[in-house]
Amino acid sequence: MRNIKLTLAYDGTNYHGFQLQSNAVTVQEKLEEALQTVFGSPIRITAASRTDAGVHALGQVINFRTDSRIPAERIPYALNSVLPDDIVITAASEMPADFHARFSAKSKVYCYFIDRAPHPQVLTRHYAYHIRYPLDVGLMQKAAATMVGRHDFRSFMASGSNVTSTVRHLKRLEVKECNGYMKITAEADGFLYNMVRIITGTLLEVGCGKRDYNLEPVIKACSREAAGPTAPPRGLVLREVKYD
Amino acid sequence: MRNIKLTLAYDGTNYHGFQLQSNAVTVQEKLEEALQTVFGSPIRITAASRTDAGVHALGQVINFRTDSRIPAERIPYALNSVLPDDIVITAASEMPADFHARFSAKSKVYCYFIDRAPHPQVLTRHYAYHIRYPLDVGLMQKAAATMVGRHDFRSFMASGSNVTSTVRHLKRLEVKECNGYMKITAEADGFLYNMVRIITGTLLEVGCGKRDYNLEPVIKACSREAAGPTAPPRGLVLREVKYD
Repeated sequence: MRNIKLTLAYDGTNYHGFQLQSNAVTVQEKLEEALQTVFGSPIRITAASRTDAGVHALGQVINFRTDSRIPAERIPYALNSVLPDDIVITAASEMPADFHARFSAKSKVYCYFIDRAPHPQVLTRHYAYHIRYPLDVGLMQKAAATMVGRHDFRSFMASGSNVTSTVRHLKRLEVKECNGYMKITAEADGFLYNMVRIITGTLLEVGCGKRDYNLEPVIKACSREAAGPTAPPRGLVLREVKYD
Repeated sequence: MRNIKLTLAYDGTNYHGFQLQSNAVTVQEKLEEALQTVFGSPIRITAASRTDAGVHALGQVINFRTDSRIPAERIPYALNSVLPDDIVITAASEMPADFHARFSAKSKVYCYFIDRAPHPQVLTRHYAYHIRYPLDVGLMQKAAATMVGRHDFRSFMASGSNVTSTVRHLKRLEVKECNGYMKITAEADGFLYNMVRIITGTLLEVGCGKRDYNLEPVIKACSREAAGPTAPPRGLVLREVKYD
């Protein structure tokens, strides 16, 4: 069997997240329907990341196995012709048998966009969180620097999650301004449930003066109550999944 | 009566254009409903430009008269709280009695966005026209330069239009590339019906080698058949209306 890797982008606005659900429309469902149409038989996919309802992706990665001989470079065109226009396959390639979209990933990069215009910028209203109050970007950058590293990030995990380890290596956490937006970029070997949105909510509290910039005590607390609120999903984009 | 000028942005995807229609939802209808809610009585507006179905605006301008004493700077907040989220008032100011959104305008600026990525960029699918074939940007820039000036632009007007004069002063026509998109910017004292979309369709024919870059003969022909096709509405944005 060939092992095919797909890179895809989607607008998550109208989906109840990536992962299959019995009673709601998901990206995975639309993808597996399109794969069945193109390849002629049911195909189960494996994704690098399960994005939540309303979260977008520019570089989600999945893999699946098939006996089909469709050349890899033709697969995006074939799938895009049957997929809804809010899901786009941007690349396809054949991988070694042991490639696994999730377990082979070395790191994931998420971006969170904040719209800082006085009134919401209408064309990005589904892709950015509009904030009217002033933010001290310098303080948010100092706060971000206090979070980078390998830590137990339990404080930044939605309560009720169930994982064996809550230690993650946050390799990069950047806060930048561009064209009336603020972009928070987070790269880690993996993320806990809602982690980027809770980091964003906490950095926003720093930015508006509600919280000290040093977030080391928040990490050390190992308690969801120590961190800030969960920022809404629409500002979040899975930017890239990195492999060796 | 006070004469109020509003600047507004909208996503035209779900509207049958700006201007009121008896059997279709338009931006004007939504605006006048919101004005009635906020000001308590029916208000008729005058717009700088009647954008077509599917066309967007970042700087549309309207004016209306009212006896209300709501301070101008509060009007955007009041209206935005009752408008749908695809229409946003970005500014309001009180103008002299003779200000007219359409007749006082000195020039209008439209931008047309073309998505040149190999596969459509999903988050801008409603705001850019995706083109897969290669384009010679340098040739398109040379072609644009042959169009600038005061001319009879009848060749670039949708057939069936009815205006007293088809002479317009095209002050600027620029073709630029940025981040996988091409942006065509057109500024004129006024535009004929579908003019920017026909200019775009003609420039695209130059860019893919189907047409000579010198567009002077196309202008001189004074015939719609001499120009290229009408590019689809979704790539077009009314960027700005300029006043003295």
